[in-house]
Order: sequence, then structure tokens, then C-alpha cells
Amino acid sequence: MEFHTKIAVDAMGGDNAPGEIVKGAVEALKERKDIRICFFGDKDKVEAELEKYSYDPAQVEIVHTTEEISCDEAPAVAIKKKKDSSLVVALRAVKSGDCDAVVSAGSSGAILVGGQVLVGKCKGVKRAPLAPLVPTEKGVSLLIDCGANVDARPEHLVQFAQMGSIYMEHIVGIKKPRVAIVNIGAEEAKGNALVKETYPLLKECKTIHFVGSIEARDIPKGDVDVIVTEAFVGNVILKLEEGLAGTLLSVVKEGMMSTLRSKIGALLVKPALKKTLKTFDASEYGGAPLLGLKGLVVKIHGSSSAKETRNAIFQCVSFKEAEINERIMQYLALAQEKTETDR
Amino acid sequence: MEFHTKIAVDAMGGDNAPGEIVKGAVEALKERKDIRICFFGDKDKVEAELEKYSYDPAQVEIVHTTEEISCDEAPAVAIKKKKDSSLVVALRAVKSGDCDAVVSAGSSGAILVGGQVLVGKCKGVKRAPLAPLVPTEKGVSLLIDCGANVDARPEHLVQFAQMGSIYMEHIVGIKKPRVAIVNIGAEEAKGNALVKETYPLLKECKTIHFVGSIEARDIPKGDVDVIVTEAFVGNVILKLEEGLAGTLLSVVKEGMMSTLRSKIGALLVKPALKKTLKTFDASEYGGAPLLGLKGLVVKIHGSSSAKETRNAIFQCVSFKEAEINERIMQYLALAQEKTETDR
Repeated sequence: MEFHTKIAVDAMGGDNAPGEIVKGAVEALKERKDIRICFFGDKDKVEAELEKYSYDPAQVEIVHTTEEISCDEAPAVAIKKKKDSSLVVALRAVKSGDCDAVVSAGSSGAILVGGQVLVGKCKGVKRAPLAPLVPTEKGVSLLIDCGANVDARPEHLVQFAQMGSIYMEHIVGIKKPRVAIVNIGAEEAKGNALVKETYPLLKECKTIHFVGSIEARDIPKGDVDVIVTEAFVGNVILKLEEGLAGTLLSVVKEGMMSTLRSKIGALLVKPALKKTLKTFDASEYGGAPLLGLKGLVVKIHGSSSAKETRNAIFQCVSFKEAEINERIMQYLALAQEKTETDR
Repeated sequence: MEFHTKIAVDAMGGDNAPGEIVKGAVEALKERKDIRICFFGDKDKVEAELEKYSYDPAQVEIVHTTEEISCDEAPAVAIKKKKDSSLVVALRAVKSGDCDAVVSAGSSGAILVGGQVLVGKCKGVKRAPLAPLVPTEKGVSLLIDCGANVDARPEHLVQFAQMGSIYMEHIVGIKKPRVAIVNIGAEEAKGNALVKETYPLLKECKTIHFVGSIEARDIPKGDVDVIVTEAFVGNVILKLEEGLAGTLLSVVKEGMMSTLRSKIGALLVKPALKKTLKTFDASEYGGAPLLGLKGLVVKIHGSSSAKETRNAIFQCVSFKEAEINERIMQYLALAQEKTETDR
């Protein structure tokens, strides 16, 4: 059997590694007989987990590594020094072309830095943005960039808009994705220096469907598909959404548990509530891709379960099948040509 | 009777003006016999509202104005052209010293611009920040700056930290308020250029209780009292909190109403839930003050009810009583002296 996609899985990264990671990967293998997974990590530990399940051994490979990068380590130093860590070896396997993509629940910083340093950017890509899908009332939006490279320039944001549009069209399946830039007001004249400079460039950009500014208040409504912003602001949006959702739901729960009457009510409400809140669960859509690299790097939450791991693996498969990287490079080349012709 | 505080109320600003605005103001007057309110707006309309209530006429003054500034107008232009608008005349009354403070539910942009242009900054204040209180699990935190002046410099942020600390100590009553700067990681080395430059300045600042960085995820937890950030990011945080809270609660509500079983449960849950969610209602604390001006300018939501108006008026009274402006000026003078001595 020919395997068309080979995915590197960092078996040692995250709070639930290797247990949930291996479990999720095996689930993915069972559903897709045409993919292969290469686990990077402590061989004995990975094998002990694999023994719990039945799977086709032809679909599995293990590369033994002796080190692990923890979340407390300085990312750049860890990437440089821990040459035999599961993450570093996995990233190198993508760089060499042996694997198409890597999924890791390990240190976010190390994934971001390692992705850019070890895998490297595609030709024409100025910066590799981290682009998680954020849940909205109507589905998901792509928030691009939430990465580690702050203080972006306007031309970076324009590329983010282009890469994000390709991703939403071909991975999430949205035709003509609507692109907006995060701003503090709807008018074109509003914003900080970066937004004011970027706005007209996005407006001119023929290859995307730019719809203007979006105020943070409207992000949860889900009326745009690609939300472009600089990494510092993107990070604030992403983290605040996670934090506030957690806090609000715990306040709601606390309220429900405060009296006997409300406790009975809570029992009756629970199943229906669980179902609606599921629409707000971004893990259904996989992890956060680091776009614009020579191979896909997908960061999943440190607390990822088997489900998120499995979905991230499918995300990698779609990425390969939809030839996202090829499309990004074509697109950037075209955009470049267009700019030069216009001059 | 001597009135120790006179508050200008923009009777024409906001969705519920003049009805709710006048109602809230009268409620405040009844509770505090030692304050006076001056309404700015259409005299006939204000009087028609006032007729609905009984109050001490000695506490009330009306200044007739013929214009109104709408939210669709460009703030700077509106402030300049509509010289007889309720907001402009009210702001001038603060500038002249006739009133101590102004409360308005009108155009945010016009309040921000007008406050700075017409009232003017206190000596030593580089920028006037808008500092709303945001609800948290444990009470409220002051988010400073959410205003209109983006692209701040490090020394602005240090002043925001100082002004915010004074406000939280003397208005909200928090001893030694904890100050943190919004960042994308907890380490000092993290952040964008602005945060990296500001961090050591805040750390050195002896007059505040700086506790380091705060990630957006932790803002709703309420572990710090003064959250310092540049206006663009502050605006994103404020608006996203409002938007997400609205969306999540509507999703929860929808979930509760989706089946017959859950509808019965919702009835039982409702009173307890309402009580806990009240802790997340920032309008209990009044409006968002624009700090550092020669007189207080308080912006309340466009949709403000009588309750928010009343609370904002009390906020102005506390501001006067606690001599916040005098303290800010003293503080800044001291900080300035300290810097010069250190050199």
C-alpha cells in the first residue's frame, strides 16, 4: 500500500503525553488507511502505549529520542541544545522531507521557534504566522497571527491575509473567505499606525475578499472568516477568549449550583447546554497551524486529549491533499508579479 | 445649603436620553443632598422629564443647548463645529471650573476628543487615558488605557500605572493596588518593543506596586487591580470582553431553551444564575473615567440606564471628595523630582 501522507507526531509533548497523543494517533490511523504516522519519543514508552490498541504496524514508525523540551525552558536555547529531543528530531524530519507535517502539544515557544528555525519558510514568505481557528456563534474564524513574532510590518499582514484565505478556502471549505483587520473602529481612518498603513494595502489586494475593519466586540459573532492582526494583539485575543470563556462558564456553573432549586434545574438543563456549548469547542477543528513553512507544523494545546490529536492529524492530511503550500507559493509569486507589473 | 460638588450631565447623549439620564440623576440627587447637577440639553425636554419626579429644585440647574452630537459624526469635526451641543457646553463648564465633572452617554469619540481638547490636561500629564473598570471573578480591575490615543510611548504607560493606582486606591478602596502590564508571556524578556521598554520602567517605579506581566487569559481572574496597556490593545480587550460575554450568555440561554426539559430547568436555575452574573456587571461601578484632565470626564455606555447614570454621578462625587486630581498632580510632581534626583 502506498501512503500519501506521513505525519510526525511529537509523542512526548504536552500534559497527557504519551498516552492521549498515541491514542489519538491510533484513532486517526484506523480511520485513514492511506496515511502513516512516525512517533518521535521514548521508544519503550511509545510502544507501551501502542500495545493497548490494535492497528496496522505498516502504518507506524517510531524514532527513538532521548530528550524532552519542557515549557519552562527558553525556546531558542532549548531548540539549539536539545538536539535529540522529540520535537527537534520531528521538525528535522519535516525539513528533510521524510515527513509532511508535525503535530506537537509541547512548549508553544519551542514549536514556534523550532518551526521557523528548523523547518524554514517557503520561498517568498516573509513571516510564518500561527493561525488558530477560534470558535464563533456561526462556526470558526481564522485568527492570524497569534505567534511569537511581534511588531509586524504592513506587508507581513497582507501575506497573512493571503495565506489565511487559502487555508480557510481549502481546509475549512469556505468559498471566497471574508477577510477583516482588527481595529478599534469601523472607519478606514481609525487605528494605530500599523493598521492605517495596512488597510489600504488589503483594500488594493485583488486576490483576497477584504471586507474592512472588525472591532473586537464583533469577533465572536463569526461574520468574517479570516481575522488579520499583528501577533501581540492576536495573542491577547486568543488568550482572552480562552480565559473569559472559562471564567464565565465557571460563574454560570457556580450560579447553577448555589441553591437546591437551581441544582435540580441544572440537571435538567445540562444535556441541552452541553450540546450548544460544543459549537464553542475549537478542538473539533484540530490545532493551530504555523503557516508558510516548508511543511506543516501544527501546535495543539498542552492539555490536548486524543480527540484533539486525532483532529490535528486529519488537519495535516487535508493540508497535504489540498496542496496548501503549493497554493501559497503560487499565490505569493502571483501577488509579487502583480505588484511589479503595477509599478 | 453649601453644595460641595457640581456635576455636569449631558442630558442629550445616549440611546436612552434624556429619559433614563434625567431619572438616574434625580435618583442621585435624592441620595446626596450635598451635590448639585447641571443638565445640558434641550430645556423643554429636560424639564418634561424632571416633572415626573419630586426633587429639591435648589439642587438642579438647566443650561439650554440647541445642538446634539451623534455617534456617526467625526468627533474632532463635531467638537469644533457644534459649539452649542450639550456635550461641548458641558465640557466647557468643567474647563471654566463651574462644574467639577461631566457624565455623558454620548459619542465615545466626541467625549474622548472633547475631554482632551476642551477640558485640557493637568500639569505634568502627558496623555489622558480612558480607564474603565472591567468585571472579574473577584470584583473589578482598572483597564488603562482604552482611549483614542494609540501608539503610546513607555513613559505614557508609566503615568497610566500611576494614575490608575491612585484611582483604585482612593475611589475603589484598594490598598496598594497591584499593577501589571498586558503581555504575551510572563517573562520579562517577552513582549513587543513597547512592553519590553516599559517593563523595566514600571519595575523601577517606587510609587506603584508592580507585579509583572499579565497574560490576557488571566485578566478575568481578577488577581491584579490595575492593568496597564496601550490604547489599541486596551480597546481590543474591553470590546472583546463585552462581545464574548454577550455571545456566550446568549449561547447558554439558547441551550437552556432548546428542549422542554431544559426549559423547565432554566426556570429553576434563573434566579440563582442572575445573582451570580450580577458580579459580572460593570455598570454597578459607574462609567469609564478619562483621567488626568482638569476635571473628571466620565463616559458611560450609549445604552446606559438610570442606574449607570446614577452610579457615574456618585463616581464623580467620590473623585472630588478623594481629591484625585490633586493627588495625581502631587504624585507626578514627586515622580518627576525623583527621576531628576536619580540622574
